Amino acid sequence: MKLTVVKIGGNVIDNPTLCSQFLADFAQIPQPKILIHGGGKIATQIAEKLGIETVMVEGRRITDKAMLDVVTMVYGGLVNKSLVAQLQALQTNAIGLTGADGGVIRSQKRPVKEIDYGFVGDIEKVDAQQIAGMLVQGLTPVFAPLTFDWEGNMLNTNADTQAQSVATAMATAFTVNLVYCFEKKGVLANPDDDDSVIAELKPDLYATYKASGAINKGMIPKLDNAFKALQEGVAQVTICHAKEVLAAVKDGTAGTTLLL
Amino acid sequence: MKLTVVKIGGNVIDNPTLCSQFLADFAQIPQPKILIHGGGKIATQIAEKLGIETVMVEGRRITDKAMLDVVTMVYGGLVNKSLVAQLQALQTNAIGLTGADGGVIRSQKRPVKEIDYGFVGDIEKVDAQQIAGMLVQGLTPVFAPLTFDWEGNMLNTNADTQAQSVATAMATAFTVNLVYCFEKKGVLANPDDDDSVIAELKPDLYATYKASGAINKGMIPKLDNAFKALQEGVAQVTICHAKEVLAAVKDGTAGTTLLL
Repeated sequence: MKLTVVKIGGNVIDNPTLCSQFLADFAQIPQPKILIHGGGKIATQIAEKLGIETVMVEGRRITDKAMLDVVTMVYGGLVNKSLVAQLQALQTNAIGLTGADGGVIRSQKRPVKEIDYGFVGDIEKVDAQQIAGMLVQGLTPVFAPLTFDWEGNMLNTNADTQAQSVATAMATAFTVNLVYCFEKKGVLANPDDDDSVIAELKPDLYATYKASGAINKGMIPKLDNAFKALQEGVAQVTICHAKEVLAAVKDGTAGTTLLL
Repeated sequence: MKLTVVKIGGNVIDNPTLCSQFLADFAQIPQPKILIHGGGKIATQIAEKLGIETVMVEGRRITDKAMLDVVTMVYGGLVNKSLVAQLQALQTNAIGLTGADGGVIRSQKRPVKEIDYGFVGDIEKVDAQQIAGMLVQGLTPVFAPLTFDWEGNMLNTNADTQAQSVATAMATAFTVNLVYCFEKKGVLANPDDDDSVIAELKPDLYATYKASGAINKGMIPKLDNAFKALQEGVAQVTICHAKEVLAAVKDGTAGTTLLL
């Protein structure tokens, strides 16, 4: 059976118009499906109002106890429940989850090396059976980027990684299409031309584009992770703009499809 | 099959020591079981820091859009996930829910009469089958006092009423014990003597205590609602201190048992 796992980032969460349009499209994707969302700027804004300083190291949020409370509130409460309520209005029976709910995604608090990231989790185990049980009940899980440890703590977790872990775990029982929505229309053959979307990317072609420098910088770890997901059993990875998710997933007429 | 539905209020949420002890006891109550929690003072404190004024009318919070965001964050995120993570550490497979999650508790936004309560929900429908499906999967639902309407909004909901609605709906398939934890050891025969707990209260005895004035004020609507739950199919209502929940539920040696 096919399963679609879609990840949206902060750029969608922070833009109510784009977010509504995305959700209307997501609601039309055939079940079973899973949505995984990032955080967005609102956690930083609320932290600031509460007098809690945001510290980022290499794009990652340092999460002390006060910041953990903020992200638990904002990602797990405000953002997650807003998405769930909107999806319910679109006749999609969404269920908002963190990794702690049903114990579905367990993490280890990241060990301190050079940097102490605080309450940040590295995923150890996804309970695919429990998630599959929800899908069978007709539910659409909507995951906040939060997991938990064995000691009663919530842990802040990277949404991209969480999407990949969930997709890989579900691949044992489903033919999984993992969809990353982002700011561009797909992987670009020419970084200066937003319309130069590569329709299909396989390892050989990826190597060629990397060698020529057309694919570079931040795209490389993203694509390396995507190919890793394929090697671990995910059937297909799609990279597309949030606006084009339906065309990319249902018709394959938008975005970049990554295949082995 | 027996089902225990336990409601805790803000006094437990606001007291970390009491809350930990309560959760350790709750974890020992045999499954299936459901926990429903109130809000606590933290929503008011966070609203204040965010510059949002709290307006209470007859003990009910007026919930404009800004306050709805605060209670969605605090009740649905911070408080709910903290309880879930702690229960997971106690080997109870908790799943944090609002009424929107899985569409399990739908409400109507309260019509404006003399007072506009804002985004406050009056419960219309509990999906007992969906909740039963979670119980069958070995999950312990933990409900925040939030529901949703059909139009994409979350709604602030009274936790006592929510507990009663859930208990009544589940009574079609389970022998339900609805347990209200509060500040006293039970219903008191003498309001000035905290140890004068009435062990068993039936309608005749309740009428006698009401007539004598021993049971009065805020206890009357609480008990009227409890007897209403019994009339609607709940097998037993227990009123006890959060500290004594295990003795009250497992052994019947604490608290007040209400029966028809």
